Amino acid sequence: MAQQTINVGLVGYQFMGKAHSNAYRQVAAFFDDLELVPVMKAICGRTEEAVKAAAEKYGWEGYETSWEKLVEREDIGLIDVSTPNNMHAPVAIAAAKAGKHILCEKPLAMSVAEAKEMVQAVKEAGVVNMVCHNYRRAPAVMLAKQLIDQGELGEIYHFRGTYLQDWIVDPEFPLVWRLRKEVAGSGVHGDLNAHLIDLARFLVGEITEVVGLMETFIKERPLLEAVDERLGARAGEQRGEVTVDDAAAFLARFENGALGTFEATRFALGRKNYNRFEINGSKGSVVFNLERMNELELYLDSDPEYARGFRTIICNEAVHPYSGAYWPSGHIIGYEHTFINTVHDLLNGIAQGESPAPTFEDGLKNQAVLEAVERSVETGTWVCIGDLL
Amino acid sequence: MAQQTINVGLVGYQFMGKAHSNAYRQVAAFFDDLELVPVMKAICGRTEEAVKAAAEKYGWEGYETSWEKLVEREDIGLIDVSTPNNMHAPVAIAAAKAGKHILCEKPLAMSVAEAKEMVQAVKEAGVVNMVCHNYRRAPAVMLAKQLIDQGELGEIYHFRGTYLQDWIVDPEFPLVWRLRKEVAGSGVHGDLNAHLIDLARFLVGEITEVVGLMETFIKERPLLEAVDERLGARAGEQRGEVTVDDAAAFLARFENGALGTFEATRFALGRKNYNRFEINGSKGSVVFNLERMNELELYLDSDPEYARGFRTIICNEAVHPYSGAYWPSGHIIGYEHTFINTVHDLLNGIAQGESPAPTFEDGLKNQAVLEAVERSVETGTWVCIGDLL
Amino acid sequence: MAQQTINVGLVGYQFMGKAHSNAYRQVAAFFDDLELVPVMKAICGRTEEAVKAAAEKYGWEGYETSWEKLVEREDIGLIDVSTPNNMHAPVAIAAAKAGKHILCEKPLAMSVAEAKEMVQAVKEAGVVNMVCHNYRRAPAVMLAKQLIDQGELGEIYHFRGTYLQDWIVDPEFPLVWRLRKEVAGSGVHGDLNAHLIDLARFLVGEITEVVGLMETFIKERPLLEAVDERLGARAGEQRGEVTVDDAAAFLARFENGALGTFEATRFALGRKNYNRFEINGSKGSVVFNLERMNELELYLDSDPEYARGFRTIICNEAVHPYSGAYWPSGHIIGYEHTFINTVHDLLNGIAQGESPAPTFEDGLKNQAVLEAVERSVETGTWVCIGDLL
Amino acid sequence: MAQQTINVGLVGYQFMGKAHSNAYRQVAAFFDDLELVPVMKAICGRTEEAVKAAAEKYGWEGYETSWEKLVEREDIGLIDVSTPNNMHAPVAIAAAKAGKHILCEKPLAMSVAEAKEMVQAVKEAGVVNMVCHNYRRAPAVMLAKQLIDQGELGEIYHFRGTYLQDWIVDPEFPLVWRLRKEVAGSGVHGDLNAHLIDLARFLVGEITEVVGLMETFIKERPLLEAVDERLGARAGEQRGEVTVDDAAAFLARFENGALGTFEATRFALGRKNYNRFEINGSKGSVVFNLERMNELELYLDSDPEYARGFRTIICNEAVHPYSGAYWPSGHIIGYEHTFINTVHDLLNGIAQGESPAPTFEDGLKNQAVLEAVERSVETGTWVCIGDLL
Repeated sequence: MAQQTINVGLVGYQFMGKAHSNAYRQVAAFFDDLELVPVMKAICGRTEEAVKAAAEKYGWEGYETSWEKLVEREDIGLIDVSTPNNMHAPVAIAAAKAGKHILCEKPLAMSVAEAKEMVQAVKEAGVVNMVCHNYRRAPAVMLAKQLIDQGELGEIYHFRGTYLQDWIVDPEFPLVWRLRKEVAGSGVHGDLNAHLIDLARFLVGEITEVVGLMETFIKERPLLEAVDERLGARAGEQRGEVTVDDAAAFLARFENGALGTFEATRFALGRKNYNRFEINGSKGSVVFNLERMNELELYLDSDPEYARGFRTIICNEAVHPYSGAYWPSGHIIGYEHTFINTVHDLLNGIAQGESPAPTFEDGLKNQAVLEAVERSVETGTWVCIGDLL
Repeated sequence: MAQQTINVGLVGYQFMGKAHSNAYRQVAAFFDDLELVPVMKAICGRTEEAVKAAAEKYGWEGYETSWEKLVEREDIGLIDVSTPNNMHAPVAIAAAKAGKHILCEKPLAMSVAEAKEMVQAVKEAGVVNMVCHNYRRAPAVMLAKQLIDQGELGEIYHFRGTYLQDWIVDPEFPLVWRLRKEVAGSGVHGDLNAHLIDLARFLVGEITEVVGLMETFIKERPLLEAVDERLGARAGEQRGEVTVDDAAAFLARFENGALGTFEATRFALGRKNYNRFEINGSKGSVVFNLERMNELELYLDSDPEYARGFRTIICNEAVHPYSGAYWPSGHIIGYEHTFINTVHDLLNGIAQGESPAPTFEDGLKNQAVLEAVERSVETGTWVCIGDLL
Repeated sequence: MAQQTINVGLVGYQFMGKAHSNAYRQVAAFFDDLELVPVMKAICGRTEEAVKAAAEKYGWEGYETSWEKLVEREDIGLIDVSTPNNMHAPVAIAAAKAGKHILCEKPLAMSVAEAKEMVQAVKEAGVVNMVCHNYRRAPAVMLAKQLIDQGELGEIYHFRGTYLQDWIVDPEFPLVWRLRKEVAGSGVHGDLNAHLIDLARFLVGEITEVVGLMETFIKERPLLEAVDERLGARAGEQRGEVTVDDAAAFLARFENGALGTFEATRFALGRKNYNRFEINGSKGSVVFNLERMNELELYLDSDPEYARGFRTIICNEAVHPYSGAYWPSGHIIGYEHTFINTVHDLLNGIAQGESPAPTFEDGLKNQAVLEAVERSVETGTWVCIGDLL
Repeated sequence: MAQQTINVGLVGYQFMGKAHSNAYRQVAAFFDDLELVPVMKAICGRTEEAVKAAAEKYGWEGYETSWEKLVEREDIGLIDVSTPNNMHAPVAIAAAKAGKHILCEKPLAMSVAEAKEMVQAVKEAGVVNMVCHNYRRAPAVMLAKQLIDQGELGEIYHFRGTYLQDWIVDPEFPLVWRLRKEVAGSGVHGDLNAHLIDLARFLVGEITEVVGLMETFIKERPLLEAVDERLGARAGEQRGEVTVDDAAAFLARFENGALGTFEATRFALGRKNYNRFEINGSKGSVVFNLERMNELELYLDSDPEYARGFRTIICNEAVHPYSGAYWPSGHIIGYEHTFINTVHDLLNGIAQGESPAPTFEDGLKNQAVLEAVERSVETGTWVCIGDLL
């Protein structure tokens, strides 16, 4: 039986380019139920030498140095936007107009206004669209979703999310693009809170209002000289202003009555990729921490009173979401597999003509929460998400 | 060498009465450097049969059924106020006027106004005064304080406090005094956030402004029929309104530029007494969780790059604060020992004529933060602590 | 209602003397169902100044400097033997002959032969007798026992016990009595493996055969100059031979077909009081670690396949063994409470005329396992426990 | 610059076949310093339909149904032996004779005799040879090795290894090849203890003598009907005898004076892939657990006394072994990456003409320990490893 294929064009070849490339390279080797096999046609970046090397290293048939050209290529069916944030809208909108399906890195856009344009573009084009909030597709997170949907946690009272990192605590760490507002839009807020918001919306529901605070601890840093695919960066001699937030926290209320606390920072020494959430419901609680992403902690009030406690579920069993595709019990997977799972669902979505969540519409709602927090920081008051949509 | 003694009168004989009694009974058996030995003179409560039984069980020489009488007794040198919150001010002010030294349970008062009166009373009387924020005196917390004071964490960026419990998730749990505003003043806010605020002020410094949210998930509960010293409660048949908060969260800014997030709830299933804080500084981080109160987690950026990680210090070594008084290495202590440590410092404070922190002045500042959050909930905006003092 | 009382005489005033004193002082203040209230009559030790100070500090009415005299005192009903190991037999046998009930520290004796004499003495005298294996009475351990007795773990396949400490890794730590064979009988073997064996016998059943190994890493140490109640020790200038084992491990088979591995050492840096066991059965597993003694980890195969994992039960609920006597949910207890629980059961045992397990008979069986391991080390072969009884 | 390549032929297409295929497919996409790029030429298995599907799924250019033919193919430079154990020797010896470099799954052989033949074959042929003990190459394990080699743990006193799984606790789990002596050689002993022995030899040194025990809890099981790459198995209706051990434990002495305890079982409910070791030295300790394979716990006695504790190092920093090839800080890797690291070192070894450890010689020494334990089980006494070599 010959398998259907789709040609993929990927824009971006650094950290996210590497992660997405890996997903396309690996997905068919793990998933037996893949309905559409990706062909790694071309990777795209501005610097020819670098993008050519990336193409070779990551297994792409060819490369492009102009995203406009890539987007126009007739043979390409799926455009993957793994650029810095300021390029999401231009590339995605052009891709939509060219009738390509789209996977776009998060946060979807630089603003709600931009996100709205992107949503309109994909709607008009009728293309499959998805935002790459890959952490939804960690098996442990998907298990949490199943538990909540089955009602095992009961009515949800609390979402408690923190996303903590420490890679810029050193004031001499240079001004990479993630620290420049014109490229990144915001700092930890769009980078990390966007993930928390996606998880909260996925697991608990829509957020209705927020109040927040943001801070930049280190106001000036050395300019950047070079960066690698692991986010390693080399500092130059001149200095420039840090124009984004180092830390951003907010309180939230959900449509269903739950309360939320959100905090993201790159100034939490010892926290490497500590994307942790805890959800408390009327019947139970779950805890997830990306640094131990194979595990879900679950507390059930229905256990006998003498035997209640948080249990640590190692989510590598065949019964766990996605895990049947990988290794036996207790043989853990890693960060990169969340992208493989995402791409798996995207490809099957394309085969079935349906955009898998989170769609651009979800990306827009996420963006509205992000922007509402920013507005709250300016006004010092609570802001309703509805006012931005 | 005959030891100096002081006669103690304790008001309250339930949960806190039991914990404080234990502290007075035990302190001299552990601490060799105790300068003033407590004599457990009288315990006081309204119900004679119950208070008489408590006196016998907990080792008091006698009992009283009128706190006014206890406070006036010539032989009493120290009044311990372990009543529900609405009695703190009347008892403490009367005790001060009678020239007694005072240990008062937290939160100090029902309001900033009341707290101010109490501060004035002890100042005028010149008596030693202390608020029983016992968790400061867990060895692990005191070690965190030492590390911060020595500069080992550097400049502090973040305080992240959560105090989570689950004992009222069941809507049939009855309306104990802690759920009635006229007795408790507030719900988790004054009960649990007060602890977090004390820890934050102790470890990080003064809070300048806050914005918060409060929620009561269960609006009505059965009236209470009976309660025991372990907080076990029996429900009656009639129902009444819950007049306090079930959950309360707030964002804060500290004087020194640090950011704070605070959250307290009694609706986090699986969290029994999860008083947890994490502090991130420019050189390191610490984490404490009361459920594992013998342990402090410490991350130091000065470790060799390949060997950095949170280390779990079991704080039972002779070099750790208070621990020299107890058991050998790794032979852990429990909740009750935080009270013994508190009473130890209080007694030595009395011997030396100095009020150990947290004093009533500290209690007032704590109260101001609590009240600022309440005001923020009403106005929907940030509130400066300074405006309340 | 006047309560029945019993006068207690305690031999030994150092580490164990302190722990046992605490238990007698505290038991009536926590347990409402205590049938016999201890009166702390006299503590006994050879050095008058020290024992007098201990009496005062720990709350004893008086003291003795001759155990023979204490044992003969008409007013004493219960003799507590908290001496170094070589004095267990003489004191306990004399106490039995004097018709006193007896609590004896572990290991019961210096040898199986001695243990047999002790068993015979208490049998002949008809006195209540108990060995102080206090860890049985940690709530978490007692919960494990209940789960096993209820069949929740099914048929037991494995007992995996390690008792690791690190207080003598420093070669300059002096030759305390625990390192001298003539006083201690053996090293970690009798000190720590005795605890593991007791737990294994309690939870899994009788051991039938063993094969083992023992080692002394540091052959010579400074002589001891002084020691305190926390095991702190000061070294002298002369050196002496270490005559006991620093580490001892053995494999075992149980009567019911289970396999056992046991290991004790004082050379495991970082392990302070790491008395850990894991039991695997056909339906579930449990794990206990004394350093987190309030917790029991439980895995149940009967959980839904997607929700299986080790749950951490914080054993401070009113439904947990002994815990109803102490503090509310999540307010943990410590090392000393295991002694309070032990003394509680002993006193009620005396009131009811029954020796609570572990009795001297249990102590003898424990001793037989210890000695079988020693014999195995000599012969290099498996040794049947039955051959020693 | 054109890169050197080597053609690979892989024998076996189930669990190990999948893992090894993945390693060859991925190694060049991660490692920039790879000196020899593998070309996935052919995979080999007896059932054509299945091996053809595997070739396609895992990315092999072609397939063979006869290993003899594969081994003789002129174009193949490296033979990877991922068969059941009884085929290791025939395939590897034939491959050596054909002048191919060899990677062989563990345990190397069915017996010491067989292992000796294999060692001789590769020596005579002068081919690069390696045993696939992939866990050595978890970054955390390699870090432990570095720490030990740098002397950071001091003199080693203890190795404490347990490898626990639970996939055959159900008596209805069928008789897969790993439960049949004629195919597997032994049960958990060769499967899991072989891993522990390799880690022990790697980290601590040579083992000199052992005493052990083995047990088969379930003597009879349903025959096997089908199995998948994740070890999922379907039972048939007839039953057969289990001819290997379900559990195997032993005590050991190392050449350098350290003591070892080893235990492997498939009857530890809740333990999925719990390959855990703890090493205690005179200056520090390390702990590794494969279920959290990105982490190494480290205790250093050189830390200030008040700040000592096990630190959890997340070994994903660029400074950690192999980790620079993967993802940023805290973005964890999984089980499969240990094979990628292994294959990386193998390929560079071939390029440099050196066999990376563990070589077949190491495999032989490992086999000698395995066999010594088996002999000890027969004789009931200690057995010297030297007697088997």
